[in-house]
Amino acid sequence: MSSVHLQSIKSFHVGGGDRRVQGLPVFTREVAAGGGTRVLDMNGTYSVGQLYASAYRLAAARWRCPVLLWHGGGMTGAQWESTPDGRTGWLWRLLGAGFDVVVSDGPERGRASFAMASQPGAGEPVFRSREEAWDVFRIGPPGGYHPDAAQRRAFAGQQFPHEDFDGFSRQFVPRWLGHDAIALDAYEALLERVGPAIVVGHSQGGGYATQLAQRRPDLVRAVVAIEPTGVPAHCTQPVAAPHLLLWGDHFAESALWTRYRQQTEQYWGLLAQQGPGAQTLDLPTRQIRGNSHFCMADRNSDAIADLVATWLAGQGLTL
Amino acid sequence: MSSVHLQSIKSFHVGGGDRRVQGLPVFTREVAAGGGTRVLDMNGTYSVGQLYASAYRLAAARWRCPVLLWHGGGMTGAQWESTPDGRTGWLWRLLGAGFDVVVSDGPERGRASFAMASQPGAGEPVFRSREEAWDVFRIGPPGGYHPDAAQRRAFAGQQFPHEDFDGFSRQFVPRWLGHDAIALDAYEALLERVGPAIVVGHSQGGGYATQLAQRRPDLVRAVVAIEPTGVPAHCTQPVAAPHLLLWGDHFAESALWTRYRQQTEQYWGLLAQQGPGAQTLDLPTRQIRGNSHFCMADRNSDAIADLVATWLAGQGLTL
Repeated sequence: MSSVHLQSIKSFHVGGGDRRVQGLPVFTREVAAGGGTRVLDMNGTYSVGQLYASAYRLAAARWRCPVLLWHGGGMTGAQWESTPDGRTGWLWRLLGAGFDVVVSDGPERGRASFAMASQPGAGEPVFRSREEAWDVFRIGPPGGYHPDAAQRRAFAGQQFPHEDFDGFSRQFVPRWLGHDAIALDAYEALLERVGPAIVVGHSQGGGYATQLAQRRPDLVRAVVAIEPTGVPAHCTQPVAAPHLLLWGDHFAESALWTRYRQQTEQYWGLLAQQGPGAQTLDLPTRQIRGNSHFCMADRNSDAIADLVATWLAGQGLTL
Repeated sequence: MSSVHLQSIKSFHVGGGDRRVQGLPVFTREVAAGGGTRVLDMNGTYSVGQLYASAYRLAAARWRCPVLLWHGGGMTGAQWESTPDGRTGWLWRLLGAGFDVVVSDGPERGRASFAMASQPGAGEPVFRSREEAWDVFRIGPPGGYHPDAAQRRAFAGQQFPHEDFDGFSRQFVPRWLGHDAIALDAYEALLERVGPAIVVGHSQGGGYATQLAQRRPDLVRAVVAIEPTGVPAHCTQPVAAPHLLLWGDHFAESALWTRYRQQTEQYWGLLAQQGPGAQTLDLPTRQIRGNSHFCMADRNSDAIADLVATWLAGQGLTL
């Protein structure tokens, strides 16, 4: 599309709480280059566990429900803004489709900031190497990454623009394992702030979307879960919001994803027992082949976004 | 202004380099909730030192030079997007004034990500408490912050929306001291990517703008330095780009800022010896009183942005 007419761009932080730090040694350092030393006392009060969101409001939205874009593990909202090969991302595509869009960074990722290691429960984060990402994102066969691009092995027909994989890896951020409760609370606070919404979640963010559809049926009006992980084990209550599950390609080549997929499909089976709202879009069975774990980054990202927008248009989401 | 017509929103990472990590122990953990454990091997190849930028391109820009917004120390690009009391920020105001705008997160801040502590030079970051920020940002007299809002002391007539100070503190991110060389290289890479630009830099980011105006006179067409720190000690070469220096209020109450201001004004004196391009906008002498260190967050933020836009309009920046 050629242009987008916006009424406002704003960002905000929501969720989390206060933490008091004490007992740290006070020290003296130069902070501003050439400005001399000063005393640094890190004891005091901090915000922790908050989430960052940027909200794009259209001058004339066609839909009353905004779309919330929730990133995957070890990522930030940047994954929705552009593709690794420099095209506009799903943020732009969904604005063009007439949705207000909110892009967020979950707690401890990107602009959400993170707590110091001395704070309770903070501990050390894990970092994702390019080697791991190449495998886990199903760019190519296990061990297919090589620092020398000429020696890399990608799946034939790979839709991910893997020539730009190293640039893509600049998006990776550390994450703290086992902090799902912190994240879920902050995403719930986001929903409370924004109001009833469509949640498009990727991977870990897709799992959070399914969790919060159960916890806050008043606020989650639809879920698009792109290769989600960490979905609920049970339906603790009837789930009314329509759920679309989206799968890319090359699951047979990944033992990890075969396992994760089983877990997710088990939950979709439970959802399906409740009614027609649980649907699956398996791209290869639609003859759309070669998609990685990041369909929003793949060469056919706009086409996939359009499939999602079309599905949403069929869900009667007039709020 | 009522609305903004955009041609595109994109984001990207630039600068930095590759790092290889080895010798770390491999371990087994649950990553996706309920998905079982898997082996985590953090040894491998990483991107480090990169910068994140989001680029807003107008459908019909009135100026050929984009404005780059560079945040202060311990902050991210979020400081330009909204004010603490929920109004639109300078990003929106400058788009409305007809400039394309690029908002960035410097290396190791926000969406730029950061390197693991085991990597050379990474070390530990410093964190800014609300207590320190209240003093250093000149919201009130030293020691004026109290966790109980009713017991806080702000300067009379304070323009910063200090009722929202705790929410504002959610923006704070850790930073690594002494990493100016990493930051300058990444901001230079940003300039190379974007092309000739106006740089509006705040605090540490204002210092980086003055440094890069010397290093890359081909790419920095104008500098607006808002209470900058870390300016150069000397002019190593003639500086042609016009420079606007902007000061808020309440310097007399801060020994730290009195010192930082002296350092900056010494450099502005050197610039002024070279021609008429070095100018100063001291808000209190214009009868604009009560501004904090964050005029882009203050209640009169739009009025200050308009002063900056008006100054830029007078600099003949047709590129």
